[in-house]
Amino acid sequence: MIYLDNAATTKLEPTCAQVIDKYNQEYYFNPSALYNVSSSLAKQIDIARQDIISKLGGDINANLIFTSGATEANNLAIFGSASLKQKTYLFSVGEHPAVYNTAIALKNSGFKVEFIPLNSQGQVDLEAFENLMNEDVCFVSVMLVNNETGAINDIKAIRQIIDSKSKQTKLHVDAVQGFCKIPFSVKSLKIDLCTISAHKIHGPKGVGALYIAPNCNVKNITYGGGQEKGIRSGTYNVSGIMGFGQAVNVAYQDMQKNYQYIENLKKQFIKNLQPIEKYIVINGNDSPYILSLSIDGIRGETVLHMLESEGVIIGTGSACSSSKVENRVLQNMGRTKSQILGSIRISFSKYNTMQEIESASKVMVEAIQRLLAMSKRK
Amino acid sequence: MIYLDNAATTKLEPTCAQVIDKYNQEYYFNPSALYNVSSSLAKQIDIARQDIISKLGGDINANLIFTSGATEANNLAIFGSASLKQKTYLFSVGEHPAVYNTAIALKNSGFKVEFIPLNSQGQVDLEAFENLMNEDVCFVSVMLVNNETGAINDIKAIRQIIDSKSKQTKLHVDAVQGFCKIPFSVKSLKIDLCTISAHKIHGPKGVGALYIAPNCNVKNITYGGGQEKGIRSGTYNVSGIMGFGQAVNVAYQDMQKNYQYIENLKKQFIKNLQPIEKYIVINGNDSPYILSLSIDGIRGETVLHMLESEGVIIGTGSACSSSKVENRVLQNMGRTKSQILGSIRISFSKYNTMQEIESASKVMVEAIQRLLAMSKRK
Repeated sequence: MIYLDNAATTKLEPTCAQVIDKYNQEYYFNPSALYNVSSSLAKQIDIARQDIISKLGGDINANLIFTSGATEANNLAIFGSASLKQKTYLFSVGEHPAVYNTAIALKNSGFKVEFIPLNSQGQVDLEAFENLMNEDVCFVSVMLVNNETGAINDIKAIRQIIDSKSKQTKLHVDAVQGFCKIPFSVKSLKIDLCTISAHKIHGPKGVGALYIAPNCNVKNITYGGGQEKGIRSGTYNVSGIMGFGQAVNVAYQDMQKNYQYIENLKKQFIKNLQPIEKYIVINGNDSPYILSLSIDGIRGETVLHMLESEGVIIGTGSACSSSKVENRVLQNMGRTKSQILGSIRISFSKYNTMQEIESASKVMVEAIQRLLAMSKRK
Repeated sequence: MIYLDNAATTKLEPTCAQVIDKYNQEYYFNPSALYNVSSSLAKQIDIARQDIISKLGGDINANLIFTSGATEANNLAIFGSASLKQKTYLFSVGEHPAVYNTAIALKNSGFKVEFIPLNSQGQVDLEAFENLMNEDVCFVSVMLVNNETGAINDIKAIRQIIDSKSKQTKLHVDAVQGFCKIPFSVKSLKIDLCTISAHKIHGPKGVGALYIAPNCNVKNITYGGGQEKGIRSGTYNVSGIMGFGQAVNVAYQDMQKNYQYIENLKKQFIKNLQPIEKYIVINGNDSPYILSLSIDGIRGETVLHMLESEGVIIGTGSACSSSKVENRVLQNMGRTKSQILGSIRISFSKYNTMQEIESASKVMVEAIQRLLAMSKRK
């Protein structure tokens, strides 16, 4: 099997599996208890926390709240920041459903919510953003790397536009598809809130985190025993958190090497599509980790199943929105209905080999050629 | 080390560790994706789901939503049911902070919330409940087994009182300390919503569930990709869910055997306390799994640390409320401040041996005798 749906989720790093097993079986205590074996576990969690903060380029006094994943972290960032109904909350229209649908819920509950359009490359349209941005805006949420297209937003420019119009606006960045893949620093970019996830970087599912800059207030959205300084209650998922820490360590250390390696894989994949290039549109082409294609006149889902029958696993858009025919991101990039129906997503990881790329691209070209021939006969 | 804080968390079942490792390393796909290796994973999750529903004694058409733990499940049960501001929401005052603090939050947001007092044994006062219950009450939340005292609430009587007064009232039961320990059936007891957790029954941390009876509506409290029929978004924690399923299988199968075994351990522990029995009050004594004691004039925390220095791990109240001097549950049972300060919780599991009980109780009696002698000298 050749797995090319790494934007949906990734294979676990073997050293993470070891860490998870160790904390599951040997260090099974509740870190919130009063005895020393528990408080030493709490300290280990805090070391993992500081380590991840430093790899985000975060302030030493910043906070990082462990959650059950990016969805919860995005909900916490947004609902936990929403207090002023007279202010405006701005979201890029290309956000992941965990941000976009939360924004819609905020709007439905009476908050003033507006959406920033995308350009044809899938990035936030900076001119449109400049027009929308004013001192009434208290919160801006723009993702770092789009999960469907790999389009990278210019967070530096976005922060500059914010700063030129308002001094008090919070910037939230969903960096799930960027953290440990694309170098960035939350402090340099003046990001107030940053969402990350373990399972996109070869860590375990069921754990993510929200980075919170110093002096940025986030209110808890659920209630309980008061863990995570009261911002996120619930017994610590010790093995998940420690596994996340391990995944970050490995991925951060190899970030540059992996980037170059995967950039080469993607270039070769695109090169191998040459026989069908006139039928293809590439949707956004910033991150080497994601290749989104639209093929006019054939269905992405059909390609997906044909490829699976030959052992190649790819995606159609994001896993989270895979059951919908509509595609908000591609629509906002100006793609036609036919291009949206014909969209597929190929996403790479360090575990893919060049040989896999050669095989998978060959299988895909042949499948698409067959489908195109069939559609012409109709 | 003798671990006697199993109400805080339990040691992972070794077969769960195997299941977790298998799903982490081999079946790492995203169950929401469209290809077959993913949809077969989704089916395995649904099999685990139905299996847990059946072991709860639930209706075949019921739903079970996997969450990040009992805290999230309790928040979902309460906030997801709260829509009518003109109605009354009743909570036992002895609930875990994940219910109690959520109830307070509901009250602070303008809902009509009232609390049902406890009797001296730590159970919901049925007469008081009967007086509070009327047809304006739309929601009642009473835990099955109290996490601090082991007091068991008479859910059957509570449901009868509800039914005698109102036809539309939802009953939520936090069964975290009861599921797979004490036999009960959600269908027989007419429980509409039931919270359970994996890590209290030798499963992994970071996973729990909310049982939802047929025709009982619960609204999602967070937003995202629409997993779990839209009630709980976020990438499935596959290994956690499958590990939970395995923990339930093992614990359910051995429930009766474990109950008797642990009942004997607890009886022996209490018997061995005979030399200090006149200084001790037992707080609630229903579940064999939990033994809560108050010792007048000494501090529970001091006992805990003395015991840890001799390799015996016990708790003081719940891990979640361990940092507070106040204790809502014991206060509501009529315990004095001195008794509250002097409270400890010993909680058992199937992994404890009779030899451990003999050693631990001996160590505890000697420690308490030394502390009592010191406090008399003062």
